[in-house]
Amino acid sequence: MTARARELGLMPGTLPTGPVNAITDVPGIRVGHATLHDSADIRTGVTAIVHDVLIGEGPAGRRTLPAGLSVFNGFGKMVGTTQLTELGVIETPVLLTSTLSVFRVADAVLTYLHARPAYAGAGTLNPVVAETNDGYLSDIWARPITDQHVAAAIDAAAAGPVAEGCVGAGTGTSALGYKAGIGSSSRVCSLSTGPVVLGVLVQANFGGLLTVLGVPCPPPPADTSKAPGEADHGSCVIVLATDARLDSRNLTRLAARSFGGMARTGSDFSGRSGDYALAISTAGLTRDGPAGVGLATATEEGDPVPDKDLDLLFLAAIEATEEAILNSLFMAVTTTGVGGHTRQAVPLDEVVALVSGRSARRSES
Amino acid sequence: MTARARELGLMPGTLPTGPVNAITDVPGIRVGHATLHDSADIRTGVTAIVHDVLIGEGPAGRRTLPAGLSVFNGFGKMVGTTQLTELGVIETPVLLTSTLSVFRVADAVLTYLHARPAYAGAGTLNPVVAETNDGYLSDIWARPITDQHVAAAIDAAAAGPVAEGCVGAGTGTSALGYKAGIGSSSRVCSLSTGPVVLGVLVQANFGGLLTVLGVPCPPPPADTSKAPGEADHGSCVIVLATDARLDSRNLTRLAARSFGGMARTGSDFSGRSGDYALAISTAGLTRDGPAGVGLATATEEGDPVPDKDLDLLFLAAIEATEEAILNSLFMAVTTTGVGGHTRQAVPLDEVVALVSGRSARRSES
Amino acid sequence: MTARARELGLMPGTLPTGPVNAITDVPGIRVGHATLHDSADIRTGVTAIVHDVLIGEGPAGRRTLPAGLSVFNGFGKMVGTTQLTELGVIETPVLLTSTLSVFRVADAVLTYLHARPAYAGAGTLNPVVAETNDGYLSDIWARPITDQHVAAAIDAAAAGPVAEGCVGAGTGTSALGYKAGIGSSSRVCSLSTGPVVLGVLVQANFGGLLTVLGVPCPPPPADTSKAPGEADHGSCVIVLATDARLDSRNLTRLAARSFGGMARTGSDFSGRSGDYALAISTAGLTRDGPAGVGLATATEEGDPVPDKDLDLLFLAAIEATEEAILNSLFMAVTTTGVGGHTRQAVPLDEVVALVSGRSARRSES
Amino acid sequence: MTARARELGLMPGTLPTGPVNAITDVPGIRVGHATLHDSADIRTGVTAIVHDVLIGEGPAGRRTLPAGLSVFNGFGKMVGTTQLTELGVIETPVLLTSTLSVFRVADAVLTYLHARPAYAGAGTLNPVVAETNDGYLSDIWARPITDQHVAAAIDAAAAGPVAEGCVGAGTGTSALGYKAGIGSSSRVCSLSTGPVVLGVLVQANFGGLLTVLGVPCPPPPADTSKAPGEADHGSCVIVLATDARLDSRNLTRLAARSFGGMARTGSDFSGRSGDYALAISTAGLTRDGPAGVGLATATEEGDPVPDKDLDLLFLAAIEATEEAILNSLFMAVTTTGVGGHTRQAVPLDEVVALVSGRSARRSES
Repeated sequence: MTARARELGLMPGTLPTGPVNAITDVPGIRVGHATLHDSADIRTGVTAIVHDVLIGEGPAGRRTLPAGLSVFNGFGKMVGTTQLTELGVIETPVLLTSTLSVFRVADAVLTYLHARPAYAGAGTLNPVVAETNDGYLSDIWARPITDQHVAAAIDAAAAGPVAEGCVGAGTGTSALGYKAGIGSSSRVCSLSTGPVVLGVLVQANFGGLLTVLGVPCPPPPADTSKAPGEADHGSCVIVLATDARLDSRNLTRLAARSFGGMARTGSDFSGRSGDYALAISTAGLTRDGPAGVGLATATEEGDPVPDKDLDLLFLAAIEATEEAILNSLFMAVTTTGVGGHTRQAVPLDEVVALVSGRSARRSES
Repeated sequence: MTARARELGLMPGTLPTGPVNAITDVPGIRVGHATLHDSADIRTGVTAIVHDVLIGEGPAGRRTLPAGLSVFNGFGKMVGTTQLTELGVIETPVLLTSTLSVFRVADAVLTYLHARPAYAGAGTLNPVVAETNDGYLSDIWARPITDQHVAAAIDAAAAGPVAEGCVGAGTGTSALGYKAGIGSSSRVCSLSTGPVVLGVLVQANFGGLLTVLGVPCPPPPADTSKAPGEADHGSCVIVLATDARLDSRNLTRLAARSFGGMARTGSDFSGRSGDYALAISTAGLTRDGPAGVGLATATEEGDPVPDKDLDLLFLAAIEATEEAILNSLFMAVTTTGVGGHTRQAVPLDEVVALVSGRSARRSES
Repeated sequence: MTARARELGLMPGTLPTGPVNAITDVPGIRVGHATLHDSADIRTGVTAIVHDVLIGEGPAGRRTLPAGLSVFNGFGKMVGTTQLTELGVIETPVLLTSTLSVFRVADAVLTYLHARPAYAGAGTLNPVVAETNDGYLSDIWARPITDQHVAAAIDAAAAGPVAEGCVGAGTGTSALGYKAGIGSSSRVCSLSTGPVVLGVLVQANFGGLLTVLGVPCPPPPADTSKAPGEADHGSCVIVLATDARLDSRNLTRLAARSFGGMARTGSDFSGRSGDYALAISTAGLTRDGPAGVGLATATEEGDPVPDKDLDLLFLAAIEATEEAILNSLFMAVTTTGVGGHTRQAVPLDEVVALVSGRSARRSES
Repeated sequence: MTARARELGLMPGTLPTGPVNAITDVPGIRVGHATLHDSADIRTGVTAIVHDVLIGEGPAGRRTLPAGLSVFNGFGKMVGTTQLTELGVIETPVLLTSTLSVFRVADAVLTYLHARPAYAGAGTLNPVVAETNDGYLSDIWARPITDQHVAAAIDAAAAGPVAEGCVGAGTGTSALGYKAGIGSSSRVCSLSTGPVVLGVLVQANFGGLLTVLGVPCPPPPADTSKAPGEADHGSCVIVLATDARLDSRNLTRLAARSFGGMARTGSDFSGRSGDYALAISTAGLTRDGPAGVGLATATEEGDPVPDKDLDLLFLAAIEATEEAILNSLFMAVTTTGVGGHTRQAVPLDEVVALVSGRSARRSES
């Protein structure tokens, strides 16, 4: 059995979700996966977060989008970080994958984009690819992701509901002792200037004690296929998107708040967990730079979000991240992979009973 | 009624505390306060975290200690940050106070130290003073802290139990809708090299929804003395100390983990909340630099904590910060200050009932 | 004899200067000094860089300006850094002074502004005060700067030519072995959108070998009043202003380029030289935030500088910084201060002969 | 004609060089190149900076080395940056290459190391690969670097003199208007604890006005094969190594100083020039972490360099970088590449005449 947190009655926070409660509630954001689980040693894949302007498709052509990156723990192989931080923009889709496949995926993004008409004459590009280490269930040294998988994930990117759990870059990941994977959620914020959407997608793969709406849940029985002392640490990649008009400075601040949501799920923020949050605004379309350079030269018209409204977005980032992580766990299924290692899915019945017990008692009080 | 969280049966996390469950469990760390609440408009003070070598007292003389700073949100007036980050050491006691008094306190630290024999010929010094905005209950523009208050706080610094709640720099602060103040806690970590202590002291003054061991607690009734729309945002200063041998890089990483504890108490990490965490190691005594310069030149003998043991310290930082914040709230009393503004203390009975309801139900399940 | 570099025929770079070749060429920027040299032990002062909106004067009222800070070496006591970096704005005049007076000056800025009508009800303010260590010629522990000196410097701030050399915060500073002080310069950049001005003001106090237009100049004879091994290190504060419309991200990048100019004058970037560059745009007037908060909420209309035009501003930052540092040296006079220490002025005749020798030979070749 | 700067009598700075005046003067540091210039469109390659412990060779086995990264302008695709910064160590050889080949090279490093016995069971690795954009002379989208080229460069790595100019990653790069490439230099510093070596290797590819020992040199005639307005910007990668015992904090500070040397050669620090400096200490051998993790757990015995000695190393970084850049230019030859673009070599006779003219005149004065 799998279910999204909200289907189980578990609703972190107070803000309303968007229509499909996923990052795709942000207009223009699409998500696609390519999943690899054919051989016994491979439980991995790639997930693409796509916007038309980042692949040179649609009337706006090839553009960059304002972006900000917050690194809580830089123990990871994410590529594209220094340029994104320096220029405050992203110019390619965001790809998530297995740790040591990150370079093949980045190279595949170049191949994919270079083949598109809008990229004729492009001088250089800065692929942004993040990863977590799914090595407990998949042979990371095999680096099985090919150009075709990356193209498939980008081409499959669609609006609407997002496949979660053991899919794409979440095929082999684990979090808080259980099988996890991809999760997503969204929040609608009623700003003084009108409603905006904040969507989150996570690749959850970190340690700690599963905590659901504040209730610590018992860890799974130890995996006897695991060697004693074997490392059990991971990472978390959090991608945030919003149609609110934010510049890179405030997107960076927004991204940082997502770690508050991660904390609420019980993360122990271990030293070997590379935790990265990347935030993108779809409202700040930038005009393309000089031919072949790909630099933004100016943002288009429009008022940015006033500072007093940021706090609502910050809260949305915390809430949507917490729920996206829960979804990444609750939508995952027990999985066996390389070396016979097995990760149990979260026992949803037990968790629901545990949490609703708390809720029941609270409504009595 | 006031009580520490643990006296109420509320025990965040799993690691054991030190003897007095405070930052003073770290050998050599002393805490002192000076409290100002004589006039109706003034509810403020100053808190000093002291170590002998930072005031040139004791056989080791004047030294620096390894230190690291993690800034989650830099909206604040903390002084001493760039040098502490650049050199990775602290060379004065840490002072906490009211936002606009920070400069008078920093200057008072210079006056205090310059009068001591060990500082004859000192070329320059880098005071480290942090603050939160207690302006809801105190007239921050009065800047009432004097040289005498600072000297009194430093001179009063003692080992053993730490006064918490409405004392020193916590006299006028609020958190999560309620009156808060100073709080402290500690954890003992059994490392492979032996036990070490991690202590935390907070000046809590931030927004969000009070969450106790995962249970969201109802906010207090609105303060009718408050003008509609009046800002209700704050900050949090977190000081960590440990006798584990860590360098500034790992102290910075340790400091960052404390925000995980802050998240667990319900912080909304609002844009106007300047959140700073400063970590100090008492184990890395450094030799003094050239006369009058105050630069560390080398750490003394001893093995640093192995990376694999860091995670336990990281967990301790999360747990002790959560408990220190709860203590800062539970030890505070309802306070009326400038403009007749009033902050209610947390209703401990209600909170305990709420949380124990959850616990009771969980033990049934 | 003192003279500005350009009066001596020494013209770094290729871009044209503004009318008075100073930071005051940026419309709205004014500079004022208060100089203290009455007693034998005091050779110090304070320098204010002022804009009407930063003191709540003029039709625009109280506003913030976009700002960016680049720290090359954080060994210094500059205050206001974390908030300026977090919010990307400055909300007070910039003050420069002697290292240990920085806190008294910051406090004086609060006193000064709080007394002005535009600051009635202001909730908090973030003074920005930088410093260098003039301790070789002045008793830094005396901290002689008072509220009156700070008010005098701000009130004296005027457009037009800037007093340079041994004045204000430059009264006691030294650079590259010689007496230095305050220096300023400017460049006009013809952008695709029209001309903009970039102005620089430096408080020069750093070590290295004086290098004029690439020609290394012999160091001064050793100061026999100096104890053997006595530290001879300092810092450099560089303030840049421009009427080009840049956000905090690009102002930070602009600020960083000024260190290139500093390098060209022969800085050895020693470990004890706290080198800070702060850039402000007068074109990005921001609307004030909620009452009493002082936060920017949005920038006003107008196109930012296109990225392709940034390079000209970056070059201007290098050139104007180099020239401002030369002016800070060439306009300073031999000074004797605390302990009978003496700093020689640069021997201008010798330097001109040395450099023009090079120039003459180059024109022959 | 090509020659090293010093062979032409051009000697930046005052510190003595090591025996071969290259990064290989640091004991244990080896350099290798693979050069690709077979087809008319390809002028590129790969350069490897290798130490035994970074490839698991020799008695010490597989280790990490302390490392620090300073990013002056993050517009680039360097990989490995966040982990290197977070952990303060490097665990693979450093590879330099063409901008869009960076991911294939990083992947090839994984392949290369995984095949070695010391890496059996390695859990993950963090390749460090930097790049500059050699697109003016080479088809960067072809991404021609293969696993074999990377292996060849690493295997070719040798002590002793380093091939400079149009070789390896410098085959297609340009700087300051002229053909440039790889350059190297070193300095010996007599510290209080004994002599240490600081070596630098650069991949020079940046804009500005060639400045030799302070003398600006005329730019080359315009390349008529270049389209009007075509971008002419680049980057600089600077690798520093030293046998001085420095931790990552001080290595980062050391790395930053190298930009001072870059400034002295005439860099305009343009917005599109991704300028990165990476510093490594060979003296801080770290013990390997838990099996399969590759984390350092502790540094070995030995005193770090006292702070007062850092300044000499900082000066060495400035001087050696300036000379390495000059070598990268003076050892390069006129090259024609993709699209018939041609970069002229620096006319050494003219430059020597220009600079010695200055010198001659100075010696007369």
